[in-house]
Amino acid sequence: MSRQVVAYDSTLRDGAQAQGVSFTVEDKLKIVQRLDDLGIGYIEAGNPGSNPKDLEFFERVGALKLKSSKIIAFGSTRKVGVNAADDNNLKSLLRANTSAVAIFGKSWDYQVTDILRTTLQENLSMIADTIAFLKQQGKEVVFDAEHFYDGYKANPDYAIKTLQAAADAGADVLCLCDTNGGTFPNEIFEITQKVAASFPKVQIGIHCHNDCEMAVANSVAAVQAGAVQVQGTINGIGERCGNANLCSIIPNLQLKLGLSCIPQQNIAHLTAAARYVNDVANMPFNDKAPYVGNDAFSHKGGMHIDAVSKNPISYEHINPQQVGNMRHILVSEVAGRSALLSKIHEVDASLAKDSADTKRILEHIKTLEHEGYQFESAEASIQLLVRKQLGKFRPFFEFREYQVNIHEPALNGVNSSAMIKIAVDGKEEITAAEGDGPVNALDNAMRRALERFYPAIKHVRLTDYKVRVLDSDRATAANVRVLIESADQYESWTTTGVSTDVIDASWRAMLDAIEYKLMRDEVRATSELAGAA
Amino acid sequence: MSRQVVAYDSTLRDGAQAQGVSFTVEDKLKIVQRLDDLGIGYIEAGNPGSNPKDLEFFERVGALKLKSSKIIAFGSTRKVGVNAADDNNLKSLLRANTSAVAIFGKSWDYQVTDILRTTLQENLSMIADTIAFLKQQGKEVVFDAEHFYDGYKANPDYAIKTLQAAADAGADVLCLCDTNGGTFPNEIFEITQKVAASFPKVQIGIHCHNDCEMAVANSVAAVQAGAVQVQGTINGIGERCGNANLCSIIPNLQLKLGLSCIPQQNIAHLTAAARYVNDVANMPFNDKAPYVGNDAFSHKGGMHIDAVSKNPISYEHINPQQVGNMRHILVSEVAGRSALLSKIHEVDASLAKDSADTKRILEHIKTLEHEGYQFESAEASIQLLVRKQLGKFRPFFEFREYQVNIHEPALNGVNSSAMIKIAVDGKEEITAAEGDGPVNALDNAMRRALERFYPAIKHVRLTDYKVRVLDSDRATAANVRVLIESADQYESWTTTGVSTDVIDASWRAMLDAIEYKLMRDEVRATSELAGAA
Repeated sequence: MSRQVVAYDSTLRDGAQAQGVSFTVEDKLKIVQRLDDLGIGYIEAGNPGSNPKDLEFFERVGALKLKSSKIIAFGSTRKVGVNAADDNNLKSLLRANTSAVAIFGKSWDYQVTDILRTTLQENLSMIADTIAFLKQQGKEVVFDAEHFYDGYKANPDYAIKTLQAAADAGADVLCLCDTNGGTFPNEIFEITQKVAASFPKVQIGIHCHNDCEMAVANSVAAVQAGAVQVQGTINGIGERCGNANLCSIIPNLQLKLGLSCIPQQNIAHLTAAARYVNDVANMPFNDKAPYVGNDAFSHKGGMHIDAVSKNPISYEHINPQQVGNMRHILVSEVAGRSALLSKIHEVDASLAKDSADTKRILEHIKTLEHEGYQFESAEASIQLLVRKQLGKFRPFFEFREYQVNIHEPALNGVNSSAMIKIAVDGKEEITAAEGDGPVNALDNAMRRALERFYPAIKHVRLTDYKVRVLDSDRATAANVRVLIESADQYESWTTTGVSTDVIDASWRAMLDAIEYKLMRDEVRATSELAGAA
Repeated sequence: MSRQVVAYDSTLRDGAQAQGVSFTVEDKLKIVQRLDDLGIGYIEAGNPGSNPKDLEFFERVGALKLKSSKIIAFGSTRKVGVNAADDNNLKSLLRANTSAVAIFGKSWDYQVTDILRTTLQENLSMIADTIAFLKQQGKEVVFDAEHFYDGYKANPDYAIKTLQAAADAGADVLCLCDTNGGTFPNEIFEITQKVAASFPKVQIGIHCHNDCEMAVANSVAAVQAGAVQVQGTINGIGERCGNANLCSIIPNLQLKLGLSCIPQQNIAHLTAAARYVNDVANMPFNDKAPYVGNDAFSHKGGMHIDAVSKNPISYEHINPQQVGNMRHILVSEVAGRSALLSKIHEVDASLAKDSADTKRILEHIKTLEHEGYQFESAEASIQLLVRKQLGKFRPFFEFREYQVNIHEPALNGVNSSAMIKIAVDGKEEITAAEGDGPVNALDNAMRRALERFYPAIKHVRLTDYKVRVLDSDRATAANVRVLIESADQYESWTTTGVSTDVIDASWRAMLDAIEYKLMRDEVRATSELAGAA
């Protein structure tokens, strides 16, 4: 078996320090589940001492049945001059009730004397006491040696003493941090190798930041020098220039160096996981991200395309399928012909890859993608679209018009109202409703209008609602993309809409959601009849 | 004097291969001027053989008086079985009329036999003939050894033979390319060192791609191994995952390794140049870019802010001013008081950390954050808030009411209209406007209403608009947070608003944007008066 390197994810803790990132408890639970599916060894999920909101998360995460990941609560060494057992942050840390914890402490003499403003000896005691106390509580302990490399360069003896204090107190892992991201790979290699040789009985970890655009190279260099735990974040999310990017480090270690980092069969889920975490964080995805970006295997230069079609290794360092990504040859080609084909086959399994219908549907999707549509996560919208293109969709109602009115200040506490007119088999229905904002008012009005004809609509709940502004430099006239997740007693489904008007984009996604529901009810009724026959 | 390493920019040639990048001749000329100002040694500006449009550029660039940069025309070795003097691409190359040229040729045996489909010997002749011909024409010649590292790993003897052919024919620089971006820094170092030792009389260059997120580390490793020319692009613009990023490489070499790459006094212009090139290329700027990104020196975590205010080297690997960037202190739930205090001090420097005013403002912000506000990037909103809390804000107008109407299908192509009523010094103004969606209509109406009183509002442009749905499981009744970026002729600023209603959240952010503008105009007028007094 190849040498094992443990992937340690800090998206939910150090990643959450990034500008523009703010996770709800629900977001965090979703990401934990996804990282566990990917096979990440450790998930550092929060700092209960500095953020009380994290305690709710730790209570709820305990209920998840995780198969691969250990949850880590993060905290710092005890305060100057306080007993570890009396330290409030350590008490919060224990309340998180995780089997493993990470503790950061200072390894740079200057940080001890000038920032912490205590003695070098007291800092060593803080490290030792804290770790000994946590070990007494039965915890697995990772010691994050903050500013280790800067500290080592300034005062190697003292930096090593801080590690020695942690190791003697029973730390399971000594994680060397390049906190400011200013160290170069050759220095990381050299220093890590010395540390690994000095502490043969403790595991060595590495934690890098990207301030010199070298966090991935530094992490790999540390592993080459003997580190067996790599800390990082999904997509490199993190403060300043970001943390070391696990989405690059994992394939670098596993596909290039032959080390074992996550289960081999999960490497192909890396691209999907990277995009999922980004969606939950509602961050713009970096198309140029190595391995997992949309452009990572895109070829535009004519000569490159020619060579790649002769043999992909001409301009691809790996096969994109290894990480679940794909090659893009034509500039305007839509993502995933084969993915689309499988959607088309769900509606009509007999359609050939090169049939006129398939081509027409692909053309139509291309046009919509050009307008800003993105169907990757909107399965229900794409199924409706395919059905409509194939003439296999019977309209359940006809939309005539809507009007939405917003009035500020609110009248009687409600600021929005909507009027909608639809027709079913020639029978017109006009209804109005109020709501918490215009989208909610329109949603309420549409349901009321349709319930007269389709009472089953009562069971539809909208469970998620996301808005992404495209071309955001067009400011308030920019295109927006809305994603809506709905559920009934049988299943849940996602729909999408794009428009320069957020209300209209929402309306399109809601319309798809309702049409999908009615179509699925019809399919269920038909198959029940077939079953009864 | 420190060792000189030449910066070689290929933004206009290899960078132009990137998806979404397309430079006009005007764009290219502007970028050349800017790179020359920065002190870049070589600018590889186009491939006249493969892109006839480039010839117009080369004609016009000849008229620029450049102080630092040599312009390079790029092409390939002669075609199989053709005389160099008769090769059409080489003829185009000469028509570019530059004093220096770059020629790429194959160094990987497999590429010669399987992609080029010729003999290994003919490939060596192609390299030798082409370079000898160009030297006869009096050109300075850079030989780009394509796929050099992959080639060296597959067949080191042949890879070296290709360099030998180039060197013997008179090449001035042998540039080693990691074309597929799959090589690791330790390999780059080792191989480059061997090459540098084998060719002591020729300059060695390095050309890397970012497919393993190691292009910067690889470029630096090559320089450490003896390379004296570094090819890259501004912001790492390039095909797939991009080229090596000169905006990180230059400060890494110059500020960290003490090498001389561009004139020392120009390093402080790096951030401005990076943003300028991005603007010309019309690409979204990467806020997290090392050295030059908006977030590169941003601090959000409370402890980090506290430490940075004690001494910046705590969490900054360099002084941001060295590269013309600046520090940003972000306010958020994970930040402690000191972040906020620095914001408060911008309004009133005399307020103490524990004063009643400070505490009250802090409480107020906590309440707003609980509602979903997030001020970390909305500096203008927080400044207004602090001013209002301190009684240092004179209202410029009074909001009375607005109404927004959305009608689908659109009437005459416009689906939204807005009515707004405001008052200035008791004078009421009621105005209406149409727009591309309700937010745009409301924006238009507010501007029309206020322009009568404050004509300077004409100069305000909304440059960015972002929407984030909070508690998205509350579906269409969820809270949304809007961020708006505005600019006038003096500066740009960001404001925010939160509401269950996306229109109302946008309205709050727009209101702050306008109030901030008027407040700043007042400050500018006052300080001009003071200056005149």
